[in-house]
Amino acid sequence: MGKPKYQDILDRLVGIGLLLASEKNLHKLLEKIVEEEMNFTNAEGGSLYIRRGKYLIFMVFRNRILENKLPRDTILKRIKKSKFEINEKSIAGACVKRGEIISIRDMSRVEELGFSYDRSIDRELGYETKSLLAIPLKSPEGEIIGVLQLINLPQESFTEEGLRLVRATAAQAAISLSNGLLLDELKKAQLDTIYRLAKVAEFKDRETGDHIKRMSRVSMYIAETLKHDPDFSELILYASPMHDIGKVAIPDHILLKPAKLTEEEFEIMKTHTTIGGEILENADTELLKVARVIALYHHEKFDGTGYPEGLKGENIPTEARIVAVADVFDALVSKRPYKAPWPPDEALKYIVSQKGKHFDPEVVKAFVDSYEKIIDLYEHSDIRS
Amino acid sequence: MGKPKYQDILDRLVGIGLLLASEKNLHKLLEKIVEEEMNFTNAEGGSLYIRRGKYLIFMVFRNRILENKLPRDTILKRIKKSKFEINEKSIAGACVKRGEIISIRDMSRVEELGFSYDRSIDRELGYETKSLLAIPLKSPEGEIIGVLQLINLPQESFTEEGLRLVRATAAQAAISLSNGLLLDELKKAQLDTIYRLAKVAEFKDRETGDHIKRMSRVSMYIAETLKHDPDFSELILYASPMHDIGKVAIPDHILLKPAKLTEEEFEIMKTHTTIGGEILENADTELLKVARVIALYHHEKFDGTGYPEGLKGENIPTEARIVAVADVFDALVSKRPYKAPWPPDEALKYIVSQKGKHFDPEVVKAFVDSYEKIIDLYEHSDIRS
Repeated sequence: MGKPKYQDILDRLVGIGLLLASEKNLHKLLEKIVEEEMNFTNAEGGSLYIRRGKYLIFMVFRNRILENKLPRDTILKRIKKSKFEINEKSIAGACVKRGEIISIRDMSRVEELGFSYDRSIDRELGYETKSLLAIPLKSPEGEIIGVLQLINLPQESFTEEGLRLVRATAAQAAISLSNGLLLDELKKAQLDTIYRLAKVAEFKDRETGDHIKRMSRVSMYIAETLKHDPDFSELILYASPMHDIGKVAIPDHILLKPAKLTEEEFEIMKTHTTIGGEILENADTELLKVARVIALYHHEKFDGTGYPEGLKGENIPTEARIVAVADVFDALVSKRPYKAPWPPDEALKYIVSQKGKHFDPEVVKAFVDSYEKIIDLYEHSDIRS
Repeated sequence: MGKPKYQDILDRLVGIGLLLASEKNLHKLLEKIVEEEMNFTNAEGGSLYIRRGKYLIFMVFRNRILENKLPRDTILKRIKKSKFEINEKSIAGACVKRGEIISIRDMSRVEELGFSYDRSIDRELGYETKSLLAIPLKSPEGEIIGVLQLINLPQESFTEEGLRLVRATAAQAAISLSNGLLLDELKKAQLDTIYRLAKVAEFKDRETGDHIKRMSRVSMYIAETLKHDPDFSELILYASPMHDIGKVAIPDHILLKPAKLTEEEFEIMKTHTTIGGEILENADTELLKVARVIALYHHEKFDGTGYPEGLKGENIPTEARIVAVADVFDALVSKRPYKAPWPPDEALKYIVSQKGKHFDPEVVKAFVDSYEKIIDLYEHSDIRS
């Protein structure tokens, strides 16, 4: 770092604060925190752990020397230990317990300091961890929410002055991390509310809450493949569970009829789309706007023979074209009182056969391209997380 | 500010960042931003505006000299101008337009600089605005989200050095403000989702979405009076709309029956509480946990004669005891196909008469103490905001 002027340090500190605060995606934020702290201190490597109760969860590992020698995947495969209990044996654990920076200038003496340190990774990757700083990340409320470890730092990082600067930047990082975790929790709470209340709409129906969860996940996969825009896919994931919300207004004798509906009954059944649209209309938020469009148009068909409006092709909103495929696929592979479950490959064939008829060809293509992920989802019973 | 050491400035800057980041209530945050910036710069006064599209909304006014002479209410009554359009005429507006600090060392020359400035407030309150800084608050994404004005500052605030520090602290304030606004929006989106989906539960019922909104607002008022804990009242506001969610599972011929239910039908009707509890069970979030307790127990009575479990007194969760009062009150004052609306004062009398029978005496007391606010709510049609 040399001996920079304090104005420059002040500007860099503010800059780091702004850069981290602008990152709203939690995983990208964690990466950025490590990168920025490595840049600021000139450390060779850095890692980040998040605290969950009694455990530290490993989140990020970066090392500019190793990354020049080996592919990141190779490094990560060797490094990744998912979580460990917080205690004084590990450096990161001790950092949480003590609530202060642990600074080790000479890692050859780490055992003398009472820590156990796994050198097998260094040996395997041909690397030597010479010095280390473990920095507690405290929420603005004073709770320790994570640990940042930096390795192989220049000597000046270990001076009083150096540690002060590390503390200051870590405080910025911790504010962003704390906000990131809070936003993440709020989003999860939002999703949980939507799932439960969407479940309500299907409570009287033949289908179950699992249908909603699978269908929304498949919709998200299709959206990802189609647009490569995480914000869009996330919106689809959150909005699609409400697609059948209008069914609450369908009379029992139609909704629960164990036989084929008469034409007249089917006309009433169809109104679940427009009623869903009504329930969700005039929303201020993007999420509910998308949910409305999906509820209203997920029974439209690409060739214009669907309902409620008989929209055709691109006139059907993309979100609804995506959910249409996911909804039909899940219905086909599910067991119902009146039908056996189809084998997934048969359902896939059917979806493909409806390209340009019921379904948008591009959405069908995205569905086929995501098929491996989708099958993986159906093979795992608990898809909640 | 004198000539402090840069370490001290760094520490203060980090301190301000942490202090502001720890404030999760938007209105308190706005106050704190002004206070902290006044302290940091030794300004006599400060005010804060939030940007909404083409407008600046006045949010905070502080002045340590005036507050020593006059009650804050008197000052605020004189000051408060709700919003104004952003243009180059006002100093704050110009600050947004230009996106940079506007610094005026000598306010007697403010008109020469092309600004119009209302001196009538100063005259009436016996005050003189001598100097002013208008500081744009930029989100980490670079958008101007507010303006902070500081008045009557020491000369060193106007030096290059002083402005650099003001910019640095304003950056911290802006990060917190940006996060605060985002959290506020997410909470509103959450509430909007809950309202719409709770509306679903009442879609087939005789009641309307307005019942839910009023009932949840009244529940919040009671909670405020009872506990003086904003987090608790907010939880009640958000959770209570889901109280009748279990009604979706009640067969149409019972739920929609225009006459008195038979004993057998009533038994089925009662299951809307346990079904609501089922829909909301196993939640991770505090909000849904409270919602579950309310759905399950809002028909319990204080004397043990309620359902589904016949719980008595304190064994009924507080949240459910609160909602029970709000739910009955709203039902009484509402028009229904089978009954005229009661005059509010009659409904109040009935609630009081059920003290210790249907209702918890302490909740009834809190209801009576909040009655003025409640009546005010019923007199205003749009209670959405």
